[in-house]
Formats: sequence, structure tokens, C-alpha cells
Amino acid sequence: MAKSYEKEHPVKAFGWAARDTSGVLSPFHFSRRATGEKDLRFKVLYTGICHSDLHHLKNDWGSSKYPLVPGHEIVGVVTEVGSKVQKFKVGDKVGVGCLIGSCRTCEDCADDLENYCPKKIITYDGPRYYDGTLTFGGYSDHMVVDEHFAIHWPEKLPLDGGAPLLCAGITTYSPLKHFGLDKPGVHIGVVGLGGLGHVAVKFAKAFGAKVTVISTSPSKKEEALKEFGADSFLVSRDAEAMQAAAGTLHGILDTVSAVHPILPLLSLLKNHAKYILLGAPGKPLELPVFPLLLGRKIVAGSAIGGIKETEEMLNFAAEHGITADVEVIPIDYVNTAIERLAKNDVRYRFVIDVGNTLKAA
Amino acid sequence: MAKSYEKEHPVKAFGWAARDTSGVLSPFHFSRRATGEKDLRFKVLYTGICHSDLHHLKNDWGSSKYPLVPGHEIVGVVTEVGSKVQKFKVGDKVGVGCLIGSCRTCEDCADDLENYCPKKIITYDGPRYYDGTLTFGGYSDHMVVDEHFAIHWPEKLPLDGGAPLLCAGITTYSPLKHFGLDKPGVHIGVVGLGGLGHVAVKFAKAFGAKVTVISTSPSKKEEALKEFGADSFLVSRDAEAMQAAAGTLHGILDTVSAVHPILPLLSLLKNHAKYILLGAPGKPLELPVFPLLLGRKIVAGSAIGGIKETEEMLNFAAEHGITADVEVIPIDYVNTAIERLAKNDVRYRFVIDVGNTLKAA
Repeated sequence: MAKSYEKEHPVKAFGWAARDTSGVLSPFHFSRRATGEKDLRFKVLYTGICHSDLHHLKNDWGSSKYPLVPGHEIVGVVTEVGSKVQKFKVGDKVGVGCLIGSCRTCEDCADDLENYCPKKIITYDGPRYYDGTLTFGGYSDHMVVDEHFAIHWPEKLPLDGGAPLLCAGITTYSPLKHFGLDKPGVHIGVVGLGGLGHVAVKFAKAFGAKVTVISTSPSKKEEALKEFGADSFLVSRDAEAMQAAAGTLHGILDTVSAVHPILPLLSLLKNHAKYILLGAPGKPLELPVFPLLLGRKIVAGSAIGGIKETEEMLNFAAEHGITADVEVIPIDYVNTAIERLAKNDVRYRFVIDVGNTLKAA
Repeated sequence: MAKSYEKEHPVKAFGWAARDTSGVLSPFHFSRRATGEKDLRFKVLYTGICHSDLHHLKNDWGSSKYPLVPGHEIVGVVTEVGSKVQKFKVGDKVGVGCLIGSCRTCEDCADDLENYCPKKIITYDGPRYYDGTLTFGGYSDHMVVDEHFAIHWPEKLPLDGGAPLLCAGITTYSPLKHFGLDKPGVHIGVVGLGGLGHVAVKFAKAFGAKVTVISTSPSKKEEALKEFGADSFLVSRDAEAMQAAAGTLHGILDTVSAVHPILPLLSLLKNHAKYILLGAPGKPLELPVFPLLLGRKIVAGSAIGGIKETEEMLNFAAEHGITADVEVIPIDYVNTAIERLAKNDVRYRFVIDVGNTLKAA
């Protein structure tokens, strides 16, 4: 007999789930836990569609668990708070990103880097929650989270365009800060102008850096320069232009999640510069060693950010008027949106208007 | 007609050269430039045989130029100084490592990082010298260098055991310093216990770090622990031991110059830790991206060091009694030594007693 997700917990919930590796989403009745002492419950208003939702839905990384309710760029409004909740009250706008749990005791947790905690619990389709149940994300009517993993939504920040910052924003903001690429005088390359890339450009420009977008699509040049304020644009297949730009960059954020050659991109870096991988290709990349040796270059990875830094990032975005460029869609468009996302047919992020369009049948 | 290297420059010189990709060395008469205003001339006493000599001799990197006189771990005694030489006088002991020229004006040169200068001139088989001639290394009776690229030899440092520090020493010392792995409380892995590796262990221990040697050869365990003072030893093929050591290291120096899998080694690193490649495999390595992302780990390269840091390293070595473990050989043993080196049959570095054994026929 199939497990009844409707009766697992005391509070009824409703969302859209994929049931198998087809990744097709359809309405799904399930349940959420009672509001614990330190929990807050919130009605979901907007949820961004992240490119990694696609990987989870299709089991591209081999670890998907079904039923699978995606969504980790979630903005909502608090409807109930536990007796020991200190930071939130009913009616507050909150954001929840990729994390809803961590051990709270390890070195990384102590350093506000819950995102690197080996026992972190991700918002959906990760290791199970403390109680052993599957986690279900923000393609759903409401959520319950420990207040530690919720973030006050800045008043000035739009709910729809701001939602994707909870993943795409912090994923680009955190490495810019950590690797010292957050200041004037620094020249940054952003590889790939998609959901992550366009937000990376906005943050880098807000930090005062010079930004070059590197893309396979010449069609994105105008938007990169005019809309997002990039200083220059390189088509990665244009060997001559790439050669002319060799040795000019202090850092590169590579947002591409497919396997791709990094040798030509490494050559764009100055000596001692940093190549930061943000996308997660399923197979290893080819790492040429000589360019690393001869220029003492660094290849690093970075994954989202801690809760404290995510809050800092949202406030920075609000202050600098940074949002993702979004196409807001109703929930029943979600399968089409996922198909379009797979073809890179979105500028630059879909956001589901969950609050107004998700209704239980 | 073959070029006459004997008459190219005014001063006769003699050494051993390879004439082709067989890499076999034989006596070679050539010439060196007159002593310039800022040059010093020195009689070569000892020259270490570096593993990269092997690659150059056999044209493994595809850029070898013949005749090829190797040698970039050179200790000698000054025999003549130019009129504007300030730092040296006749009779001084000097060391010359991998570099004999650089642009002296770029950002890296200004930062005492001549080793990363794009116009650096390496001691042999590199881009040609300023005058367009081939550079010939320390498997030869004497050399002439701009005083900037010579280093005062510390009195307490043995000439033979110290010679390899000019490459193997600085190659390991510099990244330990640069990447913050030069202090107590840090746990360092050294992959490969050869010429570089055994010196890396000695420096890391002298810095007060905890050191684990990771090797494919269980036979090196005793020496690693007893002779070089490593704290532990891991056989990289022992999956169980590798698993038990997962997440324990702050940094790894990988001294292996063959293509090898780095995924199991990356798993030994703590989050935010650093994997530093020092060997130069001719083909790309496989770079798994997930471990970098999930632990914000860094893969970097590092190549030798600047002149100032090399001097600092030699003084540090003298102070801490650090030398390479060497087998001193006469020049006419050099081809056998190269063959043995190719089979890793040396503990841990050959040094040619050039001063006493190299005689023109």
C-alpha cells in the first residue's frame, strides 16, 4: 500500500509534486508537522524555479526521492508562531532558501556557515528531516520551519523578484564576498548569463567591480550591457576576443551547470586569480594543471551561503535595488515553465505566484 | 652546418648535454657570455637532479630545445663579479635555482614573485635569454647570472644536501606560506614521498604542523614516520584507512607529477581546505565538482617561488637543519641516475658533485 503523506503529520498541506523521474508535476495532498516551540508556519506567496529543481525532478544527480515537491526560493507571510519563537510574529514577511536544518553544533554552524554543515537538511529532496520524514519544498501552500532558518524579508524588496535571491542571490553574493571580489578595482568574469549569472552581474556591479559576461550566446550581449550594466561581453567561442582578454580578470564566477571546458576560461584570469564553480555538472570537468601552476591560480567551489549571510545579502539587495528579472507564472503553468527552463527559454527566472494561484481542488 | 655553441659567446664552458629526445647526456663544449656589469660568474660545485630534468630531457612537455644542459638546483662559488655588482664578492657561496631572468617591471616582479612573471627566463630550456640564445643549466662547469637571481648561501647549510632546496625546497615552502599552512594547529597531507614530498614533510614539521604522508608505497611508511617525522601515513589504495581519515586535513600538497585521481584525496580535506598541485602532469586531471561546491574547497597550483622568498627559505632551512636527503654522484653516473630516477629508485634526490667530477676531456 502506498504511504499516506496526507496523514503523516497533523496539518493538511497541498502542493504540486513529481511522482517519478518523468519530473512531471501534478497536484499533491500531503501534511506538515504541528508548529513546534521554535517553529513558524507561513503561507507561501512566491516560489522561484531554480535550475536545480530541474535536476532534482529528473533525478539527474541520482538521489531524488519521490514524491518530490520542489522549491527553495520561497517568500511567505507568517501565520503562526511557536511559543519560543523570538524573531518573528504573525504577519511578518519571511524568506526561506535552500536550508531548513543543520546540526547547530559543528564548526561550520558555529561560524554561521550552516550551508557547509555535514548534517544540513535541505529544503526539499535532501537527507530526511530530524523526524525521518521527507522534506517538501515551496511549490506548496504553506511551510513550517525552525525560525533559525527563516529570514526577515526587507520591506523595500519586491516579493516576486526577490524570491530567487534566496538561492541564485546568495550563491553568487557569498563567493564574491568570501573570495575578496566585492570591491572596486576588481575585474570579474561571469560565465553564463542565466538565473545565477544575471544576478551575479548585478551584485558585482553593486560592489563596484568591473564585470565581463562570458557566454556562448551572442544574443545576450545587449541585455548584459544595457540592462544589467556589465562592462563588456565575450562570446566564449570567439577565440580572437578570448585571446585579447587573456590575463585580465581577478575572478570568475562560473554559473554553468553542464560539463564544459574551463581551460579557455582559466586563461582569462590574471595570476593568483580565482575561478569559482557554482554550477554542479554531474560529471568531472577536465582540469589542466599547467595554468594553475604557472599562475598560482585557484579553482574553487561555493554553495549558497549561511543564514546570516543570506539575511545580509537580502538587505544589500533591498538597499541597492537588486532583484532577479522574473517571469511570474501561475502554478498550473509550472510544467511548461520547467520545459522552457530546460531549453534556457526564460529571462531570467520563473517565479510561481503560489499565493494567488495554488488552490486545492 | 651545425651551430657552434663553442663560439657563440666569449667564455669557454663545458658541461653535459642531451642532443635529442633520447635524453642521453654526454660531454658538451659550449660557451657563456662575458661577465656583465651586474653579473656574477661562479664555479658550479653541486647540482641537484630534479624530476623535471627528466621531463625536459625526454621532451615530455613538447617544448624541449636541444642541445639541452639541465640543472636548476645549483650551488657554486663566485669567481668574478661585474663592476656594478653590489651583493656578492669573489669567494662567496651562491645558489641559483630555476630562474635567471624576468622583466623586473610587472606587478609580479614588483611583488618579488619573479616566478610568475610572464617574461621570466628559466635556468635552462625555457624561452631564450635576453640575447636570444639558449639557456644552459648547472650540469656544467660554471655559470654567469645577473646578481638579482643569485642567492647568498647560508653558512650553516650543507652545499650538497642544500642544493635541491633551490627547487624542491621553495616549491613546497612557498605554498605552505602562501596558503596559510605554515603554523601549529594545521594538519597537512603530503601526497607522494619523493624529492618534493620528503622536503615538504620537513618544512611542514618545522612550521609546527601535523603531517600525514599519503603514498601508494607502503614501503615508505617507516622512513616517513621515523626519519622525516611525519605524524601518520596513509596508503592511498587502502580505502578503509582513507575513509577513516576523511575530512581531517586543512591542506594537501600534491607532489605527484603523473596523472592520478584526486577525488579520494579531496575527501581527506576539511571544508574550506586547500588542495595544492605542485606536480605537472602532461594531461588534465579529472576534477569532480561536487566536493568543491559542498565543502567550498580550493584546488590551486603553485610553482617554485620568488628570489626573495627563496632566500628566506634557505635561511629557514639552515636555521632548522633542513636539507634534502641526497645521494651524491659523479657526473659520469648521471645517465644511470636519470634512469633510476625514472623508476623512483632514489632516496630522495640525486646531487651531482660537479665541482670535483666534471672535467673537460
